[in-house]
Amino acid sequence: MNKYTDDSYALHTDLYQINMAESYWADNIHDKKSVFELYFRKLPFGNGYAVFAGLERVINFLTNFQFSESDLEYLSDLGYQKDYVDYLKTIRFTGTVRAMKEGEVVFGNEPLLRIEAPLAEAQLIETALLNIVNYQTLIATKASRIIQVTGDAPVMEFGTRRAHEFDAALWGTRAAYIGGFIGTSNVRAGKRFGLPVAGTHAHAFVQAYRDDYTAFRKYAERHKDCVFLVDTYDTLRSGVPAAIKVAKELGDKINFIGVRLDSGDLAYLSKEARRLLDEAGYTDAKIYASSDLDEYTIMSLKAQGAKIDVWGVGTKAITAFEQPALGAVYKMVSIEDENGEMADTIKISSSPEKVTTPGLKNIYRIINNETKKSEGDYITLAHEQPWKKDELYMFHPVHTYLAKTVSNFTAKDLHVNIFNQGELVYDCPSVQEIQSYLKQQLELLWDEYKRSLNPADYPVDLSRVCWENKMKNIDKTKKHIQKYER
Amino acid sequence: MNKYTDDSYALHTDLYQINMAESYWADNIHDKKSVFELYFRKLPFGNGYAVFAGLERVINFLTNFQFSESDLEYLSDLGYQKDYVDYLKTIRFTGTVRAMKEGEVVFGNEPLLRIEAPLAEAQLIETALLNIVNYQTLIATKASRIIQVTGDAPVMEFGTRRAHEFDAALWGTRAAYIGGFIGTSNVRAGKRFGLPVAGTHAHAFVQAYRDDYTAFRKYAERHKDCVFLVDTYDTLRSGVPAAIKVAKELGDKINFIGVRLDSGDLAYLSKEARRLLDEAGYTDAKIYASSDLDEYTIMSLKAQGAKIDVWGVGTKAITAFEQPALGAVYKMVSIEDENGEMADTIKISSSPEKVTTPGLKNIYRIINNETKKSEGDYITLAHEQPWKKDELYMFHPVHTYLAKTVSNFTAKDLHVNIFNQGELVYDCPSVQEIQSYLKQQLELLWDEYKRSLNPADYPVDLSRVCWENKMKNIDKTKKHIQKYER
Repeated sequence: MNKYTDDSYALHTDLYQINMAESYWADNIHDKKSVFELYFRKLPFGNGYAVFAGLERVINFLTNFQFSESDLEYLSDLGYQKDYVDYLKTIRFTGTVRAMKEGEVVFGNEPLLRIEAPLAEAQLIETALLNIVNYQTLIATKASRIIQVTGDAPVMEFGTRRAHEFDAALWGTRAAYIGGFIGTSNVRAGKRFGLPVAGTHAHAFVQAYRDDYTAFRKYAERHKDCVFLVDTYDTLRSGVPAAIKVAKELGDKINFIGVRLDSGDLAYLSKEARRLLDEAGYTDAKIYASSDLDEYTIMSLKAQGAKIDVWGVGTKAITAFEQPALGAVYKMVSIEDENGEMADTIKISSSPEKVTTPGLKNIYRIINNETKKSEGDYITLAHEQPWKKDELYMFHPVHTYLAKTVSNFTAKDLHVNIFNQGELVYDCPSVQEIQSYLKQQLELLWDEYKRSLNPADYPVDLSRVCWENKMKNIDKTKKHIQKYER
Repeated sequence: MNKYTDDSYALHTDLYQINMAESYWADNIHDKKSVFELYFRKLPFGNGYAVFAGLERVINFLTNFQFSESDLEYLSDLGYQKDYVDYLKTIRFTGTVRAMKEGEVVFGNEPLLRIEAPLAEAQLIETALLNIVNYQTLIATKASRIIQVTGDAPVMEFGTRRAHEFDAALWGTRAAYIGGFIGTSNVRAGKRFGLPVAGTHAHAFVQAYRDDYTAFRKYAERHKDCVFLVDTYDTLRSGVPAAIKVAKELGDKINFIGVRLDSGDLAYLSKEARRLLDEAGYTDAKIYASSDLDEYTIMSLKAQGAKIDVWGVGTKAITAFEQPALGAVYKMVSIEDENGEMADTIKISSSPEKVTTPGLKNIYRIINNETKKSEGDYITLAHEQPWKKDELYMFHPVHTYLAKTVSNFTAKDLHVNIFNQGELVYDCPSVQEIQSYLKQQLELLWDEYKRSLNPADYPVDLSRVCWENKMKNIDKTKKHIQKYER
């Protein structure tokens, strides 16, 4: 049916990237050195921090970046000229990338990735990078936010059926694990990323056997570990008593882990189920709960004294239901000029938060050596060396009177080198390592930044040099516009 | 790094499906004939209808359903026994499927897919089918909802960077096209589905050339069709005047299609841009607008008299931002009993809307032969023949006093045959044909069902036979529970 038989992700981009690259190439500026930063402006969900995720997928994408034969054929069919299509055929990613580690705690206006690459390449990869980082960072953040309210109770990811297609289920599950979930129901994600997988049976299983007791008994005949789903017909009158009956009958032959509630009034049902289990002597049996849960329903259930030991979270995490888009952008901050020097670029806007910060930059977390807590993040131009300073003057980049002087600090470079002129120089850690890394990094944050409701604003400051450079660029650009207008 | 080198979508499922199938197989009921229906309960976004999408992807999935070598190896490593893993190796999809056509107008509690298959197979495919249909139906519905407010102005899909990973961008774009969008910025989707693709340049292009005029001029040197993005520095003082200047200088050498606004006060800016373009003689030049648009902002902009000719919709459509999950479920309605007869199954719930409707069923749209409009949808048991009746008594399945008698009607079977005992018997139409089909089907609906706010409730009724059968099953199941409890 479709004449284009092979596929690649190189065309996973917006058409305007192809058109811009064409003009750059026709104008012979396609290999000009350029710098782009990928960042979001505003933290999602009103959360006090975000969790960076998506780097492994970005690395895969850049490593394999190449138009396939049929990609090129399709572009020819769209009307692109042969000379340009021949050029596209030669393109690989040859740039230098620094990035946050996956699992890093990040904030608005921080460069998550810094891409130095020939102009056309930097442009062609934009859309895919945003697509990857926007989604995975969103879900890792949502998961971490949920983990902040569950305390020691484990959370499982159950959202595949409601995810936005296959990739979202796969990578979203990985992101949820990074954020702190302990496992997933998605078997393919378990296989691909080495995640713990879990799940026993559904309502259909009980329907197939007509009643709870027969179904649980049949399940237990083949499976040692048993969590029985008890709400197919009537949770308290049928489901829980049948689970207890099977547990008693089979004794040590099975590992009766507990029961799962998937509908109804979870506060009431969990308390009653707990009572029935305890009365039967199963005080160690766990109560699993699922049913459109998120951090708000979990907080409410805990406030009501619900007896829930394990949370299964689906729809609300895997879709980031509350706010299903992050809104990260990818902006040019520097480009090679006519003399081969790197020159700042800026995007002005009538919305102050949309004005970009020019120049090749680094970002540091300023850690107080006494408290071992972070004082805030500090963005500098690349040549600055904040770690050499005894004192750092940190001020809010918009409300500049919000300022403090920090001494006895460690300036931790938040970026690591990923690609060096097209060569991959980074080993991706396992998801387990990433999850642990996040836990450690959250330790650097005061609790005020971690609470779900109305967290304090974490400082993301510009160095004075960086800030003054931005102001200079704003002035220059405004003058230039006025001159042009005449 | 990962020992499992190949991949398939067979493991794109929840672990409990694997565990249930294991019990069925161990108990030798895995080949029992079963019937499942896939449906959602509640229309999304408060819309008056939904648009079914996802069937092509479902067909691909079922056609290729097979565990790979490394899938089986992974399951062995998880601890599944060799005899069961050997059984899984043999599984293909051998069932019979009837489904709505893609682009069909659908409503709550209607079987979108009807699966008759050996029990284990029907179970193993559940998660992927829900994942596919939930997302694609959601996006097709959102797109169609947006189209209801834009009138004759075309809408383009621009959302890839905010989609939930790659598959969502690809299939979401296709769904948006089905819903009525005229094209997309996503090049891979254009290639794969034959969709129109569009896009010219971004802010970075203007930054690369330092000013609007130079950038537009450079773009026009290589591209005949020009839509200039005018808001990089200052829309009205720099962007639009520069676009006009380039259009004048190049005259017939280019096709000056218009300008694009991507930020700021779109009502004010579009009116002023229109004035500037008209004064310069470019009364045919189009104004494109994008910037977090959805049906609400579009309605508001139109009410303000904004001069926008083409809408670019991204985040809000591709993520279904307003409600990013549909919530379709997959429920067993019938299973082979001990005597080889098909027997009804039901799921009871304290929430009345969650009680399932038992039995193998068909669904008809009852079209009034005089008005050519639909009177509602009519769900029957499979043996019923509503088209043979002169009069049809249609009543609300919960509020049964809401009833009417319809005569002089056509009963249109909404299902088509997709698989017959594992054999694909359906040719997928092109997306263009699907888009046209939706337009025709929407003609059957009175406008009251199509408005964005507070649409009328479209009747989805059960035949008397089907309704009485449901009541009988509820009674029987309740008695059974009470007896068990004792």
